[in-house]
Amino acid sequence: MELMFLGTGSGVPSKERNVSAIALKMLHEINSIWLFDCGEATQHQILHTTIKPRKINKIFITHLHGDHIFGLPGLLSSRSFQGGDDLLTVYGPVGIKEYVHTSLDLSGTQLTYPLSIIEISEGKLFSDEHFTVYCKKLEHGIPSYGFRIEEKDKPGELLVEKLKEKGIQPGPIYQEIKENDVVITNDGMQINRADYIGPSKKGRIVSILGDTRSTEKNSSFVEGSDILVHEATFNQEKENLARKYYHSTTIQAALLAKNSSVKNLVLTHISSRFQQDDWHDLLQEAQEIFPNTEIASDFYQKEIKLEV
Amino acid sequence: MELMFLGTGSGVPSKERNVSAIALKMLHEINSIWLFDCGEATQHQILHTTIKPRKINKIFITHLHGDHIFGLPGLLSSRSFQGGDDLLTVYGPVGIKEYVHTSLDLSGTQLTYPLSIIEISEGKLFSDEHFTVYCKKLEHGIPSYGFRIEEKDKPGELLVEKLKEKGIQPGPIYQEIKENDVVITNDGMQINRADYIGPSKKGRIVSILGDTRSTEKNSSFVEGSDILVHEATFNQEKENLARKYYHSTTIQAALLAKNSSVKNLVLTHISSRFQQDDWHDLLQEAQEIFPNTEIASDFYQKEIKLEV
Ligand SMILES: [Zn+2]
Ligand SMILES: [Zn+2]
Repeated sequence: MELMFLGTGSGVPSKERNVSAIALKMLHEINSIWLFDCGEATQHQILHTTIKPRKINKIFITHLHGDHIFGLPGLLSSRSFQGGDDLLTVYGPVGIKEYVHTSLDLSGTQLTYPLSIIEISEGKLFSDEHFTVYCKKLEHGIPSYGFRIEEKDKPGELLVEKLKEKGIQPGPIYQEIKENDVVITNDGMQINRADYIGPSKKGRIVSILGDTRSTEKNSSFVEGSDILVHEATFNQEKENLARKYYHSTTIQAALLAKNSSVKNLVLTHISSRFQQDDWHDLLQEAQEIFPNTEIASDFYQKEIKLEV
Repeated sequence: MELMFLGTGSGVPSKERNVSAIALKMLHEINSIWLFDCGEATQHQILHTTIKPRKINKIFITHLHGDHIFGLPGLLSSRSFQGGDDLLTVYGPVGIKEYVHTSLDLSGTQLTYPLSIIEISEGKLFSDEHFTVYCKKLEHGIPSYGFRIEEKDKPGELLVEKLKEKGIQPGPIYQEIKENDVVITNDGMQINRADYIGPSKKGRIVSILGDTRSTEKNSSFVEGSDILVHEATFNQEKENLARKYYHSTTIQAALLAKNSSVKNLVLTHISSRFQQDDWHDLLQEAQEIFPNTEIASDFYQKEIKLEV
């Protein structure tokens, strides 16, 4: 499970940073990739990675500002050229349906795969075998959402050595023990699963917030995340501008991470007013508050490890 | 007056060729740039050139396929960040207005300059002091247009030496002679302008066609162009595919150039099925019919010279 940052700038693309897009790669877990936001030229950025667009089967749009959505029609179209007919679901604020349908219809684009577009509101978005995803409204002038992706805990592994010691050899019985609280063997032995299963592995929590002003209301939503991805459009000196334009500063993001028992913070959505020389300063002022901070750059990949 | 090819691929972007966009740079002539089509990431391509988006004051859209328009909302938005409040006019087929307004409205984009969108039909598009622009419907399944840009002839220069020989020294009288058929000097000498003006310079003609099937009907429209920009999505071997998908081949484009007394042909909109190794072959088969053929690549610039 890795995050790959495809666009880490804000507002307009620059040579250094494209506009917003983040891929959550879960190829080992569910053989699929989720995309968060899709600024213009996201499909171009993908050309420089190993990501296959047909593996993307969910796209989450935080908000409808152009730097977060203008790459969506192109990506949807191009995905048709890659073969594959897996369902793609787009989640986004009210309006995303009209935007996508108008773009595809007027351009005469016919997709080769089924597309489902779901307009979201706060709460639980969905829950499946592997994940539960929640979303929350942030403060950004227009509706902007954060997403909290909770991986389900994984049951522990069968303690094979311990079973063998008891004289129970590998076979279909192992699957039975995994699936039932109590199993009686052919010899009449009672096996309680709890005695032969290792500790369960805690699922990971990834929180990715769209553009937002700093507000305490975001704290409980990101509480305990393994990774929090947060915008830092401005440095602390520009706190007033951040407030005015419904954005956050480096330090505001770091404080949220600190106060919400987050494990790692990655800053993104960096204004192009900051040149390459400034990035270290941005990072440093955040790290003074929250040491486990990184600043994303385009194509930066961050592994999200399972706790052991 | 130069053409700069910003995207020369077809359908989907590749690492080698972006989707369609061509800039007609007329900085010396009218201090402005016209854009023809605006595929996704055209603004990104522009970042690698000296083109300033605020100098672009006309955008011509040949047709509404995604690879020709999905960069338009982003370019329009970003142009607002560059300062300047010059009018921008977009010309395109019916539907372009809805596409642009829906994209800008839903994304909450407020432009800092006036935007005019004109939905076109065949005929004369406009005529001003410097240029007349015509458009013609092509054959592409959906409405697709070609544009013929005719520069007005430039009056010849005053023959200063000849005037001096007659004893007429530089001064306001020179401007008078330029502007009137006949001028009487203070000494009562009659000056006929025709005798003191060099030959007028023929205006240039640039024809840029959108995606189109090969058809004889395009011939009179591009007749006598200094430059014809024509799609060549396929090579001659794929003539059937070209016909089926309403596109042209290398040789079909070359034949049109030859039969229409065009001076130079530039091929673009090259399918990504052709790799870098194939480009020379594409060019060669066109050159066998029409030697003055070139094949565009991204960032290729072609000067359009005045005839002397
Ligand atoms: Zn943004
Ligand atoms: Zn095309």
